Amino acid sequence: MGAQDNLTQISEIGEFGLIEKLNKKIKKNNNLVIRGIGDDSAVIKSQKDQELLISTDLLIEGIHFDTTYMSLSHVGYKSVIVNLSDVFAMNAIPSQITVSLGISSKYNVEDIESLYEGINKAAKNYNINIIGGDISGAYNGLTISISVIGFQKKNKIVYRDGAKKGDLIVVSGDVGSSFLGLKILQREKMVLSEHKTPKFAINDIELKLKEYTYLIQRQIKPEAKIKLINYFKQNNITPTSMIDISDGLSPDLNHISKASSVGYKIMESKIPIHQQTKNASIDLNIEHLFAALYGGEDYELLFTISPKNKDLIDKTEGVSIIGELIEDVTHKIITKSNGEILSLGNKGWDHFKTT
Amino acid sequence: MGAQDNLTQISEIGEFGLIEKLNKKIKKNNNLVIRGIGDDSAVIKSQKDQELLISTDLLIEGIHFDTTYMSLSHVGYKSVIVNLSDVFAMNAIPSQITVSLGISSKYNVEDIESLYEGINKAAKNYNINIIGGDISGAYNGLTISISVIGFQKKNKIVYRDGAKKGDLIVVSGDVGSSFLGLKILQREKMVLSEHKTPKFAINDIELKLKEYTYLIQRQIKPEAKIKLINYFKQNNITPTSMIDISDGLSPDLNHISKASSVGYKIMESKIPIHQQTKNASIDLNIEHLFAALYGGEDYELLFTISPKNKDLIDKTEGVSIIGELIEDVTHKIITKSNGEILSLGNKGWDHFKTT
Repeated sequence: MGAQDNLTQISEIGEFGLIEKLNKKIKKNNNLVIRGIGDDSAVIKSQKDQELLISTDLLIEGIHFDTTYMSLSHVGYKSVIVNLSDVFAMNAIPSQITVSLGISSKYNVEDIESLYEGINKAAKNYNINIIGGDISGAYNGLTISISVIGFQKKNKIVYRDGAKKGDLIVVSGDVGSSFLGLKILQREKMVLSEHKTPKFAINDIELKLKEYTYLIQRQIKPEAKIKLINYFKQNNITPTSMIDISDGLSPDLNHISKASSVGYKIMESKIPIHQQTKNASIDLNIEHLFAALYGGEDYELLFTISPKNKDLIDKTEGVSIIGELIEDVTHKIITKSNGEILSLGNKGWDHFKTT
Repeated sequence: MGAQDNLTQISEIGEFGLIEKLNKKIKKNNNLVIRGIGDDSAVIKSQKDQELLISTDLLIEGIHFDTTYMSLSHVGYKSVIVNLSDVFAMNAIPSQITVSLGISSKYNVEDIESLYEGINKAAKNYNINIIGGDISGAYNGLTISISVIGFQKKNKIVYRDGAKKGDLIVVSGDVGSSFLGLKILQREKMVLSEHKTPKFAINDIELKLKEYTYLIQRQIKPEAKIKLINYFKQNNITPTSMIDISDGLSPDLNHISKASSVGYKIMESKIPIHQQTKNASIDLNIEHLFAALYGGEDYELLFTISPKNKDLIDKTEGVSIIGELIEDVTHKIITKSNGEILSLGNKGWDHFKTT
């Protein structure tokens, strides 16, 4: 970043010049769009038998991402994924995004092209069109605002409030890994800045990072769970409620609990935790259950489903039944592996309280 | 703003507390929504015979608005209007918005409630639902990102690229007034900060501002042209191209010219300029034609229409035929009131170049 010799300041080509440059690289990845970038609004074909879904996320440098350990291409990729994840969490298929950027003068044209490389890559991987947006100067850092549009048939849309007592609680993939990936990156950044002989520090850091490649990849290049949504469709099953895990397993399960007016009991032994997460939790002195429950940014899907689907879910790779819903909404409990029973209150990310 | 005694810091109630507080004031203004705020995505009823339109704008404090002469309520109102305007400019009706805010610690809960007062007022005036959004802390100022969704039948959507030679060029309302309103506010702000006896300065400012209430209202509380869109529908006429004037009459006409591959000739004497704009232009020593052509932020509609509609347009209140389209795309000319002929190149707002 900055004003090196071969790099282009955004002021040299202006807002419109930058937009034109970025637009040239944007490809059409699906045919649902009538008119993309280049008019006052984008126009999308109406999907006659499907409702329209929309979600939006605002990502601010220093709060949601740190470019000292994430390349701008990864920042772009992840910005798209976190948005898509919200549409998948409704059991719907995202198809269009708009991308707005507030860019301070520390960034040059090539930086923003890198960011867009990641955005375009995510769009391609998930068959998404980039159909609009806005670019503006900003006084500080980088602000990314993405809105996503998707479609689904009315009776297939899954909300947070459809969960019923007796339903199974299921989570995809594993939880806690992204959070510990972040902690590893933050620690190594600090080691480097404090080390008297940075050369040796770097060797050390590289070794450490190699041990935790899975965790780091989960933090800097997460994926959204499109396969699971397709699996539901193929097997003609519909969860009773669903949410994506962005705040953390516990706060997100509490969202379902509150919206559906049900309590729950889950078991620590059933929560999917990756071996690297367990190793890093010892290394970092963070209880791995804490990371799994409150870490967040997993972008896994947490859903509830009728117990009649138990056999199918048991046979399904990549999902874990972690407990079940109970009638009493005040009972939100976890049985730890040592037999201890804990009540799970509200806790998780809150940007105003943690900064 | 700031930490006065009776005011609530956002950190006291947290991000979720603030969202809950704001959501309580949000009313449902139309029935197109199935599920608004409170899930991973909002869900909107599909409009079977209508396509879907989406547009988005990013507004950054200090670049797009200045809270020293605009109340937060006005900032909120205007943020919504500039977005709706983009959907009206496609001859479509906006119906839903998402609102994302990046808020620095200089703002308290009451400030953001004021902002939302303006947002809610605009939503009510234009029958819009607020169906989602995101709230985050930020290091600097206030960032507002709004996305708007609207609907229209396929054959009624008006793009920038449908203009034909011989079509009339028409503009609604008047142009240049918002820009001079801004210049008046900026000047009075400077007068106040430089004046040795602020008390007398304030009297003086109040007098000046009274002279220019129309200009100031155009700058701080603009409206979108819903009436004109309804008029088109009632009279069953469809412009061949349309754009809203945000950059300025000349750059926005050039957008139509470029997209439609047509040139144009317009006449200064036909451009609608308010008397206060003319007065202020003398006062501020800014040529009023410059303000009209390049001022921007008018949020009027600029459209082209078949000459067969001339009689109807002539009879229509609040619109002015300012010229016509010609075949040669390189000819973009204005005949000044003194007979001089000027060529209109590309010029207008560009945030990177003007700051």
